[in-house]
Amino acid sequence: MSKTLNILGLSGSLRGDSYNSAALRVAQAEVPEGVTLTIADWSGIPVYDQDLNDPAAAARVTALAKQVREAGALLFATPEYNYSIPGGLKNLIDWLSREDPQPFAGKPAAIMSASMGVLGGVRAQYDLRRVGVYLDLRFVNKPEVMIGQAHTRFDNGELTDQDTRAIIAKLVASLARMGRQNSSD
Amino acid sequence: MSKTLNILGLSGSLRGDSYNSAALRVAQAEVPEGVTLTIADWSGIPVYDQDLNDPAAAARVTALAKQVREAGALLFATPEYNYSIPGGLKNLIDWLSREDPQPFAGKPAAIMSASMGVLGGVRAQYDLRRVGVYLDLRFVNKPEVMIGQAHTRFDNGELTDQDTRAIIAKLVASLARMGRQNSSD
Amino acid sequence: MSKTLNILGLSGSLRGDSYNSAALRVAQAEVPEGVTLTIADWSGIPVYDQDLNDPAAAARVTALAKQVREAGALLFATPEYNYSIPGGLKNLIDWLSREDPQPFAGKPAAIMSASMGVLGGVRAQYDLRRVGVYLDLRFVNKPEVMIGQAHTRFDNGELTDQDTRAIIAKLVASLARMGRQNSSD
Amino acid sequence: MSKTLNILGLSGSLRGDSYNSAALRVAQAEVPEGVTLTIADWSGIPVYDQDLNDPAAAARVTALAKQVREAGALLFATPEYNYSIPGGLKNLIDWLSREDPQPFAGKPAAIMSASMGVLGGVRAQYDLRRVGVYLDLRFVNKPEVMIGQAHTRFDNGELTDQDTRAIIAKLVASLARMGRQNSSD
Repeated sequence: MSKTLNILGLSGSLRGDSYNSAALRVAQAEVPEGVTLTIADWSGIPVYDQDLNDPAAAARVTALAKQVREAGALLFATPEYNYSIPGGLKNLIDWLSREDPQPFAGKPAAIMSASMGVLGGVRAQYDLRRVGVYLDLRFVNKPEVMIGQAHTRFDNGELTDQDTRAIIAKLVASLARMGRQNSSD
Repeated sequence: MSKTLNILGLSGSLRGDSYNSAALRVAQAEVPEGVTLTIADWSGIPVYDQDLNDPAAAARVTALAKQVREAGALLFATPEYNYSIPGGLKNLIDWLSREDPQPFAGKPAAIMSASMGVLGGVRAQYDLRRVGVYLDLRFVNKPEVMIGQAHTRFDNGELTDQDTRAIIAKLVASLARMGRQNSSD
Repeated sequence: MSKTLNILGLSGSLRGDSYNSAALRVAQAEVPEGVTLTIADWSGIPVYDQDLNDPAAAARVTALAKQVREAGALLFATPEYNYSIPGGLKNLIDWLSREDPQPFAGKPAAIMSASMGVLGGVRAQYDLRRVGVYLDLRFVNKPEVMIGQAHTRFDNGELTDQDTRAIIAKLVASLARMGRQNSSD
Repeated sequence: MSKTLNILGLSGSLRGDSYNSAALRVAQAEVPEGVTLTIADWSGIPVYDQDLNDPAAAARVTALAKQVREAGALLFATPEYNYSIPGGLKNLIDWLSREDPQPFAGKPAAIMSASMGVLGGVRAQYDLRRVGVYLDLRFVNKPEVMIGQAHTRFDNGELTDQDTRAIIAKLVASLARMGRQNSSD
C-alpha cells in the first residue's frame, strides 16, 4: 500500500478573505484518496535583510523550511501584484532558498492564481515558473489554473463556480500523480 | 536656466555592504551638473497584508510615496534573487503602488543590477521592466547596466573598476536627459 | 503647422483573414488628423539563414527596413503562438535588425494583440517589449490592447465591438502623441 | 536490458558554422551508453502562413513532426536573437505544434545556448521554457548551459574549452536520465 502524500499549500496573500487562500481550501477538499493538503502559515516573516539579527524570524523561517522539505509536493496559489509575483510571497521564497539544504530542490509543484481582473494572474505564474528553474522545482504543466474575475466566482470565501472547482481538482490530481512518481523514483 | 533634476535612488538590497547600494553611491558621484541623487531609505517596511493595521508602517509608505512623486526620475539598483526581483523591493513597490495618486505614474526610470554571478542580474531587470509597464514607468533602454562578478569590481564598498564607473555615468546621463525632457513636456 | 506623422503597421500574421490585420485596418480608420497609417506587406520573407544567398530576399528586407526607418512610429498587431511572438514576425524582426543603420532604433511603438483565447495574446506582448529594449524601441505603456475571444468581436473582417474600436483609437492617439514628441526632440 | 534512448537535437541556427550546431555535435559525442543523438535538418521550412498551399512544405513538416514524436527526448541548442528565440526556430515550433497529435506533448527536453555575448543566450532560454509549458515539454532544470563568448571556446567548429564539454555532457546525462524515466512511466 502506498503511503500518504502530503501537499503543502502556499498562498501568495496573507489577508483572511484572500481568494487564493480560498482556492487552496477548495484544493484541500478535492484531494484524491491518500493525499492530504496543509496550508502553510507564513505571516509575520519580515522583509529579508542580510544584516538583520532577528532570532525569532530565523526560527520561523527554519520551521517553514522544514515544512517545505517534508512535503511531498507544493501547491502555490497566488495573486498577481503589479504584473509579477507578490513581494511578500517572493520574500518568503527568498528567505527559504537560503536554508540548507535548500528546501525546494526536486519538489513537484503546481501553481494556480486568482485575481479580480480578466487575465487571472497569468504574468505572476511564468515568473514563478522561472524562479522554480533556479530552485529546481518540478512544475506540473497542465492544467494551468488562472481564475479571472474571482469576485464573481466566490461568495463569502466559498467557491460558487463549479467549473473552477473541477479544474482545481484536476490540478491537484495532476500534482498528486507527479508527487507519487517522485517519491517512488 | 533650467531647474535642478532630482533623481531618487532605490536599492533592491537593505544590507549595509550591498553592491547595489554602493552602485547608487557611484551614480550619486557621477550625476551631471544640475542633477542631484538621493538614496531612499525604505528599511522597516513590513510585508504587505491588506488586513494589517499598522499606522506607523502606513505613514512610512505615504512618506516614501511622496518622495517618489516629488522625484524627477528614479534609478533602481537591484540584485537578482532566485531569478527575479528581490521580494523586499517588490514588496516596497506593491505598497507604493496602492498610494493615491499612484506615485510611479509617468516617471522616467532606469535600472542597474549588480550580482556576484556572471549574468549580473539580467533576469531581475526584465521583470522590473514589465512591472514598469503596469506602473507606467518610462524606462531608459540604453545602456543596460549589469554588473556581473561584483565582488571583483568593488573593494570595501568602493568601486575599483573604471569601465563600470563609466557605464554607470552613461546611464545616469541618459536618465537625466529623459528626466529633463519629461519635465518640459 | 506640424507635418504628417506616418505610422507603419506590422501584423504578426500573414493570412488574409487575420484578426490582427483587421485590427490594423481599424487603427487606420481611427488615426487622428495629420496622421496616416500604412500596413507593411512582409509576405515572402524566407527564414533567416546567414549562409543564404538570396538577392531577391535581401532586396525585400532592405526595402522593408527603409519603410521602417522612414516611419514616424510603429504599430504592431500580433497573435500569440505557443505563448510567445509568432516565429514569422520574430523572423522579420531578426532580418530587419541586421540592416545598417538598425531601422528600429529610437522609434516610438505600440502593440495590440488579438487572439481567440481569453487572454488575448498577453504573453506575446511582453516578449515583444523585451525585444524592443534591445532594438531601442520606445513603447507606449498605455493602453494595453489585448483583444481576447476575437471571433466574437469581428464579423467577416469587420470589427463589431465598439469598446474594442474605442481602445484601438486610444492606443493610436497615444502612439501619435509620442510620435509627435519624438519628431520634435 | 533497457532499449536505446534516441535524443533529437534541434539547432536554433541554420548556418553551417553555427556554434549551436557545433554544441549539438559535442553533445552527440558525449551521450552515455545506450543513447543516440540525431540532429534534425529543418532547412527550407517557409514562414508559417495559414493561407499557404505548399504541399512540399507540409510534407516536410509532417516528416519532422514524426521525427519529434519518435524521439525519446529533445535537446535544443539555440542562439538568442534580439533578446528572444530566433524567429526561424520559433517558426519551426509553430508549424510542428499544429500537427496532430501535437508532437512535443510530454517529451523530456533540455536547452543549451551559445552566443558571442557574455550572457550566453539567457533570455532565449526562459522564453523557450514558457513555450514548453504550452507544448507540455518537460524541461530538465539543471544544469543550465549558457555558453557565453562562444567564439573563444570553439575553433573551426571544434570545442576547445573542456569546462564547456563537461557541462554539455552533464546536461545530456541529465536529459537521458529523464528520458529513461519517462519511457518507463
